[in-house]
Amino acid sequence: MSDIKKVVLAYSGGLDTSVILKWLQDTYRCEVVTFTADIGQGEEVEPARKKALALGIKPENIFIDDLKEEFVRDFVFPMFRANAVYEGEYLLGTSIARPLIAKRQIEIARQMGADAVSHGATGKGNDQVRFELGYYALKPDVKVIAPWREWDLLSREKLLAYAEANGIDISKKKNGGSPYSMDANLLHISYEGTVLENPANEPEEDMWLWTTSPENAPDSPEYVELTYRQGDIVAINGVAMSPATVLAELNRLGGKHGIGRLDIVENRYVGMKSRGCYETPGGTIMLKAHRAIESITLDREVAHLKDELMPRYASLIYTGYWWAPERAMMQTMIDASQATVNGWVRLKLYKGGVYVVGRDSDDSLFDPTIATFDEDGGAYNHADAAGFIRLNALRMRIAARQKQKRG
Amino acid sequence: MSDIKKVVLAYSGGLDTSVILKWLQDTYRCEVVTFTADIGQGEEVEPARKKALALGIKPENIFIDDLKEEFVRDFVFPMFRANAVYEGEYLLGTSIARPLIAKRQIEIARQMGADAVSHGATGKGNDQVRFELGYYALKPDVKVIAPWREWDLLSREKLLAYAEANGIDISKKKNGGSPYSMDANLLHISYEGTVLENPANEPEEDMWLWTTSPENAPDSPEYVELTYRQGDIVAINGVAMSPATVLAELNRLGGKHGIGRLDIVENRYVGMKSRGCYETPGGTIMLKAHRAIESITLDREVAHLKDELMPRYASLIYTGYWWAPERAMMQTMIDASQATVNGWVRLKLYKGGVYVVGRDSDDSLFDPTIATFDEDGGAYNHADAAGFIRLNALRMRIAARQKQKRG
Amino acid sequence: MSDIKKVVLAYSGGLDTSVILKWLQDTYRCEVVTFTADIGQGEEVEPARKKALALGIKPENIFIDDLKEEFVRDFVFPMFRANAVYEGEYLLGTSIARPLIAKRQIEIARQMGADAVSHGATGKGNDQVRFELGYYALKPDVKVIAPWREWDLLSREKLLAYAEANGIDISKKKNGGSPYSMDANLLHISYEGTVLENPANEPEEDMWLWTTSPENAPDSPEYVELTYRQGDIVAINGVAMSPATVLAELNRLGGKHGIGRLDIVENRYVGMKSRGCYETPGGTIMLKAHRAIESITLDREVAHLKDELMPRYASLIYTGYWWAPERAMMQTMIDASQATVNGWVRLKLYKGGVYVVGRDSDDSLFDPTIATFDEDGGAYNHADAAGFIRLNALRMRIAARQKQKRG
Amino acid sequence: MSDIKKVVLAYSGGLDTSVILKWLQDTYRCEVVTFTADIGQGEEVEPARKKALALGIKPENIFIDDLKEEFVRDFVFPMFRANAVYEGEYLLGTSIARPLIAKRQIEIARQMGADAVSHGATGKGNDQVRFELGYYALKPDVKVIAPWREWDLLSREKLLAYAEANGIDISKKKNGGSPYSMDANLLHISYEGTVLENPANEPEEDMWLWTTSPENAPDSPEYVELTYRQGDIVAINGVAMSPATVLAELNRLGGKHGIGRLDIVENRYVGMKSRGCYETPGGTIMLKAHRAIESITLDREVAHLKDELMPRYASLIYTGYWWAPERAMMQTMIDASQATVNGWVRLKLYKGGVYVVGRDSDDSLFDPTIATFDEDGGAYNHADAAGFIRLNALRMRIAARQKQKRG
Repeated sequence: MSDIKKVVLAYSGGLDTSVILKWLQDTYRCEVVTFTADIGQGEEVEPARKKALALGIKPENIFIDDLKEEFVRDFVFPMFRANAVYEGEYLLGTSIARPLIAKRQIEIARQMGADAVSHGATGKGNDQVRFELGYYALKPDVKVIAPWREWDLLSREKLLAYAEANGIDISKKKNGGSPYSMDANLLHISYEGTVLENPANEPEEDMWLWTTSPENAPDSPEYVELTYRQGDIVAINGVAMSPATVLAELNRLGGKHGIGRLDIVENRYVGMKSRGCYETPGGTIMLKAHRAIESITLDREVAHLKDELMPRYASLIYTGYWWAPERAMMQTMIDASQATVNGWVRLKLYKGGVYVVGRDSDDSLFDPTIATFDEDGGAYNHADAAGFIRLNALRMRIAARQKQKRG
Repeated sequence: MSDIKKVVLAYSGGLDTSVILKWLQDTYRCEVVTFTADIGQGEEVEPARKKALALGIKPENIFIDDLKEEFVRDFVFPMFRANAVYEGEYLLGTSIARPLIAKRQIEIARQMGADAVSHGATGKGNDQVRFELGYYALKPDVKVIAPWREWDLLSREKLLAYAEANGIDISKKKNGGSPYSMDANLLHISYEGTVLENPANEPEEDMWLWTTSPENAPDSPEYVELTYRQGDIVAINGVAMSPATVLAELNRLGGKHGIGRLDIVENRYVGMKSRGCYETPGGTIMLKAHRAIESITLDREVAHLKDELMPRYASLIYTGYWWAPERAMMQTMIDASQATVNGWVRLKLYKGGVYVVGRDSDDSLFDPTIATFDEDGGAYNHADAAGFIRLNALRMRIAARQKQKRG
Repeated sequence: MSDIKKVVLAYSGGLDTSVILKWLQDTYRCEVVTFTADIGQGEEVEPARKKALALGIKPENIFIDDLKEEFVRDFVFPMFRANAVYEGEYLLGTSIARPLIAKRQIEIARQMGADAVSHGATGKGNDQVRFELGYYALKPDVKVIAPWREWDLLSREKLLAYAEANGIDISKKKNGGSPYSMDANLLHISYEGTVLENPANEPEEDMWLWTTSPENAPDSPEYVELTYRQGDIVAINGVAMSPATVLAELNRLGGKHGIGRLDIVENRYVGMKSRGCYETPGGTIMLKAHRAIESITLDREVAHLKDELMPRYASLIYTGYWWAPERAMMQTMIDASQATVNGWVRLKLYKGGVYVVGRDSDDSLFDPTIATFDEDGGAYNHADAAGFIRLNALRMRIAARQKQKRG
Repeated sequence: MSDIKKVVLAYSGGLDTSVILKWLQDTYRCEVVTFTADIGQGEEVEPARKKALALGIKPENIFIDDLKEEFVRDFVFPMFRANAVYEGEYLLGTSIARPLIAKRQIEIARQMGADAVSHGATGKGNDQVRFELGYYALKPDVKVIAPWREWDLLSREKLLAYAEANGIDISKKKNGGSPYSMDANLLHISYEGTVLENPANEPEEDMWLWTTSPENAPDSPEYVELTYRQGDIVAINGVAMSPATVLAELNRLGGKHGIGRLDIVENRYVGMKSRGCYETPGGTIMLKAHRAIESITLDREVAHLKDELMPRYASLIYTGYWWAPERAMMQTMIDASQATVNGWVRLKLYKGGVYVVGRDSDDSLFDPTIATFDEDGGAYNHADAAGFIRLNALRMRIAARQKQKRG
């Protein structure tokens, strides 16, 4: 274990990663570089600096970055161009943040000449895979330290004892704190563990932190109009906004109206089923709206091909393959489809629901002269349909005739 | 046109198909057999008998069938086993009824020695395709008469004039009636035409006939528990019910709580985009619940394979290929996956929203001893994950190394 | 029929299209522009000029183009990047030429102010679809004249009589000529009709025009080395060549060694099965070699994704959707995958067979230090496999345990 | 390591598994049960009994089974119904045998009350995965011992020293023996290692053991006729045969005519590329013939769906998921498609080539009255094609028009 010289740790400033920081110093006797990212988790990141310093980290080894714009622009938005949903329900809020953390950690490792990286994900979950596939893809010779797979601090008691013995603040945990295992970023917040481990149980109302309950949401609906350029939202109600601002504003609107709560059992990449609850207010609005703008601007077969490939694309992100060549290859195709996905979508938000109530585009393929129920002045020749149907039916007719012949 | 002897007409008893009935008699000088089905459209079917008689149809040539149970058992339920959704939104309410009508029409044609069948679908829509692909697949030598593609009654005025001239009651139309083109069955009701032909416009509230608006729905949520056997719902709140009763009851519950309204632009098989509004209260509940019961009873890869094939399966139904061999082949696979899809799902219904709040099954693959965040007593070996990740990363590491080497 | 002013005809100079030329003049009383392309069919194209003049075409209305390089560079090569094969066997030789003809015909129509285009494909085949989908996609308002679907010259006798009556040379046909319906371009030659219409019959040896029979091919094998750049062949045996020269040379080599004969029953887009025989000597070599160079330069998952999408891509080309947006979208992805497909492949050609006997690349992902059966000095950790397998097995173990529990 | 009581070893009787047998006894001090299967590898299996006895195995602990018929009937034939090919080339000869070995080993473990199983596959290959996924799926609590991942006998020298020290016969190895790592069963024989580890090198002629070289194959072609029932071959040249006899006879024919040699670089499941050479004489004939019989008996869309799913099905078998529920689910669909795959195929075998020269079936969907180039008496209406094309083109025309409008 003596061959690690310098390790870049994904450091939140919380109890677990503080214990990891100390444990890395003790176990590997190596220099530790901390990296703390603001990806919109809703907590201050600056306090992490003081904590790191207190644990003996050199000032030049402390990295604190605001990655919110990069997160939404280069990860969240490209993913929503694909209408990505995992297992019919999950909007991939945790999955999509990991590749960015991994990328920045490796950048820092290169810059600081570190030979290793470390993270605080457990040995049972998907996040270890997402972090480490990213590390290996971006720096194939990197050493990876996953303390939760190595140490013996596997119970909460042992962890707290270790923290206390090493002067790490555990007051929050002593006073209770949330019983759930949580993860948050600008796209979502997740809850796992404790009572959720029985899928028959309804979660308690006070678990949900980001959204008003539908019952307590305003009694009047609110309308909102989103402007799209090449598949991405560039303005809300006519006001141009940066990607992270778009998502923050949609989170505010969705949270206010009780939108985006999800309670599912999902299949983890490591082979088990797991129960998770999620709040994705802005993302829920974005998915609905993106499908609506695509509905008038995408060719039918392009849309269908996207739909057929989507589950696989979503699985790639869920299982941590953002940096894999097949994801990049699919993204090429998805992005190519978005050139004409421009226009606006109007939505009604009300007590947990998102309703599309209008959409239009200069690139619209909706042709009223052809679609009309009224006479169309010859734009469409009804008789064409007879031949269309007869040739599409031909193989079935031949088969039925052969079957009759055989008796 | 003189070579048609006897034609079976899908006859609703309404104005359009009454005009068709008369037009068939006049144009083809053939015997007409009428077939009227109750598939839950919510209108009496018996009046069709009197109207047919009035138009000169012999009593023995009038068929009126209640197909509600067959519709749900053999068409709706199998389709929901696949979680079928067309273009991310549409639950295929119209599409799934057509194959049953076609099948019964052909049965009657065989029984009555008819050489032709006819329907009232227009030359621009999907329904003509769905009807006729069914006809041809089931009786390859049948002759198909599609009056809307043949006659010159293409404007509403001409149609009404023809009706009036032939003693067909047009009072309903004169007094207004709905401005929308509608279709209904036990699964849904649809609206097209007039103001909907501009996708930028929000539909007016009084268009919706089956559901209370979310705003007017009860202020308190209602819980409902669905019992599944092999992928199908067999009981609601513990009360065993037949398929059609299940769907009717879910329609009642969904309608009451403002559930299942949809406003989309879809891609028709005949090549154009079209704007449609739909109410599918029971179906919306069923889709959500079926995914929930599958989430604990289906293997991960089986679920993913189903998800990847679903868009194609849904397209097959949308485009009218229910009776095609590839649909049957896919159904074999889908049905095989449902053997263990047993158990119950609890839902909360509230102001347009359907929320899963619990699910359990004797066939559950959710294993709490493995999924737990607490110590699991060795059920899962954390160290396994390291090898799992490293081998999954190997191809990317080799590629990154080769890239570095090339410089 | 009087509203056509000027029509661009795809004119081969042969009997059928000469009759069409005359028939267009007679029937539509319109100006005819002829377009004759050299796409490597192996017949002189200049004689078409004299024939056109003889039929009264103005000199400025005669277009004769050598499209061989464009054909291979922009159509054949992109298709082979996808390893496209239709129904497991057919290399799409006819299908891939039609989009180019259609494109050039439309260019000429624009240049000459023509309002219509015409072709000599019959009403039962795929080619009419391929031509016309191209026409409509590239010039949506174009008028299409398909004489074989319109006229009454449906028997050979009537056609010959019409030709004779109009002074068109029919000597070739009178003296026999080939009994087969054939199509040729630089990629292949095809045979259909007569005795081939019984799939139980073996074609006669003298049908095959391009390849020596395997039996008569040289008794010694010949080795050939192909150099790839970004998925395309740029040199043969070290000699740099243009795309069309590459294909011509591979045709020569393949033809000499009896390579590329194919006898199949295929499914036409218009709904029937059809028996066709094909000679694709160069293409058969290219497919084998391209897979070989990809085998060392493509990532596994990229290769598998390409393989899974290939049948659909091939179907798009077969059914005439080259100019459709979904084909373009897939091409984007396929082309993106080829950046590293560089290197060389050595092949042995012998009596109908193509054998890969070596391949190498500076971009090779084959890593001998890892792949070796000998000790690898730690490049690969055998123990990793245990965790890899156990986590991949976990879902199946949980399922088996649950099944045991239920008894 | 003391908690293993009884282990069932997949025992070939060769040097490696003999060393493993001894090593298991020494290391785990447990009872060893040996299992030797005849799956057509072409070596006597009885000698394994004497060797096992010599190593101290109790007579009742020695299992020697002839599994050839089960192998072909329940594994090879079902796989060929899918036309399964891995990465465009590999016929999965090794992959398909492992699930059967695993199944039988687990049966014996149950019968003998063993708690563990063991195999001789290395830590770098696919076979360890294939064996162990089978073990875990069929007996989730089984313990797996993979000596090559555990012991320190990783060099050939150490292994031979261990063998010699324990009285295991190494004469074969001392005298040279094959330099290749080989695997054989009734479907194929494979070669890996040594000079093959450089993909640029051509294998030497004397490596190939099962097939005559194409150069030395007979100078006259041989014709053979295969009879199919529900997708499986049931007779050769009119003589009914059992599955294993069919494959043995096709191996004889293919081997004689130099058919089925393959030299590829493939992607292993554990993440590396590997070079392998294979001889699959009978399998190569079967693949070609099965596609031919399907070409006249399968519906187009069924065939295309099979083609699109095939690469994934082949990957499942390659990576060891035969016993996984998704493979079973796909098999259901594949098998359902084969009900009408009956008839005969005639092939010509010549110097490495397999050529289809005829096929027919009572279930044929080839309809000569429709396919003919001659007049068809109205079986097909040419005019239908115009409507078919126009509606298929409609979405592209609308898009082109919108594009023109935007300028």
